[in-house]
Amino acid sequence: MTTLLIAGGRVLRPDLTVERADVLVDREAGEILAVEPNLAADRDTEETLSAEGGLVVPGLVNAHGHGAMTLLRGYADDKPLDAWLQEDIWPVEGVLTPEDVRAGTDLALLELIRSGTTGFADMYFHVGEVAEAVDAAGLRGRLGHGVVTIGKDEEAAQADVDEGIEMAREYDETADGRVTTALMPHAPHTVGSEYLDQLATAADDLGVPIHFHLNETQEYVDAIDAETGQRPVDYADDHGLLREDTWVAHGVHLTAEEIGTLAETDTSVVHCPASNMKLASGMAPVQTLLDAGVGVGLGTDGAASNNDLDAFDEVRDAAMLGKLAADDAAAVPAEAVVEMATAGSADALGFDSGRIDVGANADLAVLDLDAAHLTPAHDLVSHLAYAVRGSDVRHTVCDGDVLMRDREVLTLDAEAVRRRAREAASAAVDRVE
Amino acid sequence: MTTLLIAGGRVLRPDLTVERADVLVDREAGEILAVEPNLAADRDTEETLSAEGGLVVPGLVNAHGHGAMTLLRGYADDKPLDAWLQEDIWPVEGVLTPEDVRAGTDLALLELIRSGTTGFADMYFHVGEVAEAVDAAGLRGRLGHGVVTIGKDEEAAQADVDEGIEMAREYDETADGRVTTALMPHAPHTVGSEYLDQLATAADDLGVPIHFHLNETQEYVDAIDAETGQRPVDYADDHGLLREDTWVAHGVHLTAEEIGTLAETDTSVVHCPASNMKLASGMAPVQTLLDAGVGVGLGTDGAASNNDLDAFDEVRDAAMLGKLAADDAAAVPAEAVVEMATAGSADALGFDSGRIDVGANADLAVLDLDAAHLTPAHDLVSHLAYAVRGSDVRHTVCDGDVLMRDREVLTLDAEAVRRRAREAASAAVDRVE
Repeated sequence: MTTLLIAGGRVLRPDLTVERADVLVDREAGEILAVEPNLAADRDTEETLSAEGGLVVPGLVNAHGHGAMTLLRGYADDKPLDAWLQEDIWPVEGVLTPEDVRAGTDLALLELIRSGTTGFADMYFHVGEVAEAVDAAGLRGRLGHGVVTIGKDEEAAQADVDEGIEMAREYDETADGRVTTALMPHAPHTVGSEYLDQLATAADDLGVPIHFHLNETQEYVDAIDAETGQRPVDYADDHGLLREDTWVAHGVHLTAEEIGTLAETDTSVVHCPASNMKLASGMAPVQTLLDAGVGVGLGTDGAASNNDLDAFDEVRDAAMLGKLAADDAAAVPAEAVVEMATAGSADALGFDSGRIDVGANADLAVLDLDAAHLTPAHDLVSHLAYAVRGSDVRHTVCDGDVLMRDREVLTLDAEAVRRRAREAASAAVDRVE
Repeated sequence: MTTLLIAGGRVLRPDLTVERADVLVDREAGEILAVEPNLAADRDTEETLSAEGGLVVPGLVNAHGHGAMTLLRGYADDKPLDAWLQEDIWPVEGVLTPEDVRAGTDLALLELIRSGTTGFADMYFHVGEVAEAVDAAGLRGRLGHGVVTIGKDEEAAQADVDEGIEMAREYDETADGRVTTALMPHAPHTVGSEYLDQLATAADDLGVPIHFHLNETQEYVDAIDAETGQRPVDYADDHGLLREDTWVAHGVHLTAEEIGTLAETDTSVVHCPASNMKLASGMAPVQTLLDAGVGVGLGTDGAASNNDLDAFDEVRDAAMLGKLAADDAAAVPAEAVVEMATAGSADALGFDSGRIDVGANADLAVLDLDAAHLTPAHDLVSHLAYAVRGSDVRHTVCDGDVLMRDREVLTLDAEAVRRRAREAASAAVDRVE
């Protein structure tokens, strides 16, 4: 056994208390071996990371996004969701090559590592390239092909469903278990009824979870109602899509009955506050979801509707927007959002991470507290919720491997990644315009 | 004449176009001399700052805040405004010494410089200490004593009004003109009617502007209505408080008539999106204010309700919350929020800054664009609105002086400032608890 020692700092424990402790990691197993004060390096210790003056936290988990949309960061802003997708985003996405998706995903992974995110969900296409990128960069990803069948003939629709199933089969449990998959119908209103059934059956066959967009805008709720006479949650439930390992994105416009159904089916909801604000989609009832016992995680959504992948921004946004949605400054407190971005998101994705605890995945970040905006330190959980940013991350570790040390990313050539992404973005836009 | 040359970058111009240009600054006058490509250093050039790979922007202007509240960052969160003030904030503020206020203000100034803010408004107490801190740190500040008379006997109330007037007289146009003042009644519901009149008259006598909190929460609107039968804007107008050089903070709960009055009186509104969300105060009708021709600036409010002073966060928050408030993703676009944080705030405070233009104050920041979260660069104004953070600031310049160079703050000893702030915060809390 070889070990990694993270020494000299304070540690955020699963109950959100902070204690002075070192963290010892089994590098081969990628697991946390011990969390105790004054652990010493021994002959098994290959590497020691300094956490002096810092705080060791679980690596954040970004539970909903579209990684390669980094290529479209700032390409089109200040438009409503549907027009933005149809006029700006989908035309460019339609011409992206597998190499473009690899370039955009690498850029996303670079950004995630630099901001202390170690696990994420990705709904995109050319999933083979995404999986290879995740394998090489060292993160933990739950990946899937976003299936869309509306506007396609039967052959093309079936081919898209088949690709979703094939990708989920091929890449599940690869990259030493860091890459897992899910079946990802884009949304109830963009995938035909019979194809939703096929995907639900395939999820059973493959033993993988299901992920989709749900009740993101009032228009999308109305579309399902007009077509089926049902609320989207009932419609999804009738198709067998709501289950203990399902996680849905957004959940902005939900009735009390729908929230009850999500709770009963153990379906998790991933809140995307920045995207919901930027696209004027609305305010998700996060405190109500928490009160109902629904598991809640956090996601950035794609970089084009955010416009970055810093999950610490999302933590702050969630705390703030949750209060406005509840009309109560005591709603969605600091503890709740820190939990959502770590254990909440990890649980939604079925990761054994999001907690600094013995036996958990060694997915963690070390934050620098030595900064004006983190002074004084009355309450470090408050700082995590409201004041820490991705730029405060000193080291990032996933599965026992050091991905960033002293802000230098070790698993990606940052300059080359940024150059390839610039070139891919510029060429794709040129092909469309 | 000695000059400062900022060379090799791109420049955000007042019309929000971006061009390749260098910026030449007259250090003594503290003014921009030229904005042109390929300016060369000559014998007058004392110093050259590299803007290679970067973007020169106006230093942001933070038009509403309470600097020394940095001491209370994270001290009490997740509570509604009134309870939070009365139970947590005011008791600690009540025991702050002049030295504590200096320590907290220094911390605020350190944070402002590090995040590219060069000008700000400050409503607090022990204004002499605040003015000395601003003088030493090199920023541009519009300072005032926050007058509160409710809950005080006549003598104490009059003394507070007198202090507000005395401070405005004593410190206006000091620190080579970088320190100016204003009369700052805290809010219409916290200052008695006769004292509002005194302050309006004193503003005429001294030739200084007026600043106060207005319509921050529905409760505060109701309080004025209950006492006077008037909407707060009418009440303030009747007391002569609304004028061309007045700027008010928040403006969350405004009727169409009140917005009309603000426009007619040329009163500026400073939007504080993060504070309004965190305290669940509500959503200011920013697009409606802009459409009505009201001048709109941006403010962080105090660090205790934010919890940082990074004005770039506020820019992003304003763009996002403005869309939600208008229920329109096209509302409050990137251009509007960039304008609000620069020229809009500068105009509100009466600063000749907020624009990179010949003859304007040499108050500017150089941003590093060489980062994953700013790649690719389809649109730099979009990046300024949605993706740039304070940590991307490379150099900060105010009044022709370099306050931060390559992220090293030159006018403050960062470690000493942080130590003194920690000590002051901890001692103040101990005195109360």
